[in-house]
Amino acid sequence: MRDIYVLTEKDLRGCVSLGHDTVAVVEDAFRMLATGKVVMPPILSMDIPDAHGEVDVKTAYIPGFDGFAIKVSPGFFDNPRIGLPSLNGLMILFSAKTGLVEALLLDNGYLTDVRTAAAGAVAARHLAPAEVETAGVLGTGVQARLQVEAAHLVRPFRKVLVWGRDAAKAEACAKDISSRLGIAAEAASAERTVKDSQLVITTTPAREPVLKAAWLHPGLHITAMGSDQAGKNEIEAAALARATIYVCDRISQAEKLGELRSAREAGHLTDVMPPELGEIVSDSRPGRRSQDDITICDLTGTGAQDTAIATFALKAARAAAAGTLIKA
Amino acid sequence: MRDIYVLTEKDLRGCVSLGHDTVAVVEDAFRMLATGKVVMPPILSMDIPDAHGEVDVKTAYIPGFDGFAIKVSPGFFDNPRIGLPSLNGLMILFSAKTGLVEALLLDNGYLTDVRTAAAGAVAARHLAPAEVETAGVLGTGVQARLQVEAAHLVRPFRKVLVWGRDAAKAEACAKDISSRLGIAAEAASAERTVKDSQLVITTTPAREPVLKAAWLHPGLHITAMGSDQAGKNEIEAAALARATIYVCDRISQAEKLGELRSAREAGHLTDVMPPELGEIVSDSRPGRRSQDDITICDLTGTGAQDTAIATFALKAARAAAAGTLIKA
Repeated sequence: MRDIYVLTEKDLRGCVSLGHDTVAVVEDAFRMLATGKVVMPPILSMDIPDAHGEVDVKTAYIPGFDGFAIKVSPGFFDNPRIGLPSLNGLMILFSAKTGLVEALLLDNGYLTDVRTAAAGAVAARHLAPAEVETAGVLGTGVQARLQVEAAHLVRPFRKVLVWGRDAAKAEACAKDISSRLGIAAEAASAERTVKDSQLVITTTPAREPVLKAAWLHPGLHITAMGSDQAGKNEIEAAALARATIYVCDRISQAEKLGELRSAREAGHLTDVMPPELGEIVSDSRPGRRSQDDITICDLTGTGAQDTAIATFALKAARAAAAGTLIKA
Repeated sequence: MRDIYVLTEKDLRGCVSLGHDTVAVVEDAFRMLATGKVVMPPILSMDIPDAHGEVDVKTAYIPGFDGFAIKVSPGFFDNPRIGLPSLNGLMILFSAKTGLVEALLLDNGYLTDVRTAAAGAVAARHLAPAEVETAGVLGTGVQARLQVEAAHLVRPFRKVLVWGRDAAKAEACAKDISSRLGIAAEAASAERTVKDSQLVITTTPAREPVLKAAWLHPGLHITAMGSDQAGKNEIEAAALARATIYVCDRISQAEKLGELRSAREAGHLTDVMPPELGEIVSDSRPGRRSQDDITICDLTGTGAQDTAIATFALKAARAAAAGTLIKA
């Protein structure tokens, strides 16, 4: 008989949050990804057409981490009609030494939110210009708020611009960001948001570009994290070609699910092997070289981040004596 | 807040066992597989070389089943050195309507044992000759015992022959089978086991054939369930060519992981599309036509079986008020 931790979303919200500690562990995961010793199989994906649903499974083994996570993310897009969220999911943490189940993290996607935002902080730390006065975000959802908060951890900007297709949601998002970070935030057009910011995050489910190449300007960094499926596209293809440097989290994913896919379909970046974020983090390939560079980082989300955050969460839960122990 | 069932191996052993009910639900899964409406993605597989480990993830959506399972099966082959089993794992059952987690089945592989044996019963029911006097098994592990028991549910033979590389283990296995089923069972050579039986099950981890083509005889049915990885091979390639009919659980898996792989490498069955077990079960393709046919059924294990047994297990656990409820 062994003890298995069962941690609910409430347990996890009590002991894991976006901060320097979670950013550090996700940064470690990216650093390890660049060593080539991480094992990260392609995402398992299954459609459930009868219920307008899908389910994705991600995993990765990172040498040096005590455990590896398997994350299951169902998306059932008719759920809101019956008052349930579309996205759910859980992570299972296994010992990397024995394969035994150590913890069931019933996070309903919370840990994914945190590790996704943390990756944005890692991208901003290593690619954004040293001085950021204004940050902009295209999108008004949970990640819009979290990504701005994450970027603020590493670039303490003083103003935020928010654009959304729905003006009321953009206003509400700006208000939330302002009260959370204690800085000015306001809704703006997409064009002004990009032109007036030194750091921009795109967090939309767009299938047609919402960020135009013409709006790029010297000294801009963009983190694009909305695209995580073939068919999604937030940034005009020409923008990727115009950037001084284009970086992605994982080429094998970005070329299928990220901005790289749509850029290549438009004939850009077809014969280059872009750097991965882990290579920038570990200084094995150069990132920004001058204040005037234009940088784009394309994040699709990796199993390595899941393993990192799940390992962190179990340690935090143990320290806080959170959760339920099951004898199994 | 919702209730999630957490069921341990002990809970599950208390309410799910190999029997006509579990065979029926696995048979339903095979029947559905043949309709073409089952969604069953390729197995996600990850090696963890540092720990001599691997982990496989299987899933399938079966229309008409309330839930779908995701099964995670770690195999860490250094575990016995520290007194732990090599194989472990769990299943997660999700609602097929909403994608919400319904149950965590911490079965340590028990449900896999049951559904694997149940598939053997389905194969025997639809392919073995009507009269089986003697059944044979090559292999002496848990599945050797369970497969014989499963076959006995559908073909109540009176004698069992057991072969294993380790004679003492073969004796012990024969003794267990005899006391469990109340019939004669004895250890024998591999050749005699095959020649004297009308129904043979192979349940070894062999990488070189243990069942020779020369031993085949009219009226024999073989269920080969040991091969579930590229590199495994229990049956001499020529035997597959010599059989009247070769059937597998899923061509896409058998050609990579099963006996079909090694047979094709040897130049047999290269230009045929063998029937799948579900097609035999649903009468869409013919199985055994006469008592003298030689039939071989190659089972690699499918996500559809996992979804079937997990759905069954949750119903059984609810009826027995077994397990722990977590509010999540």
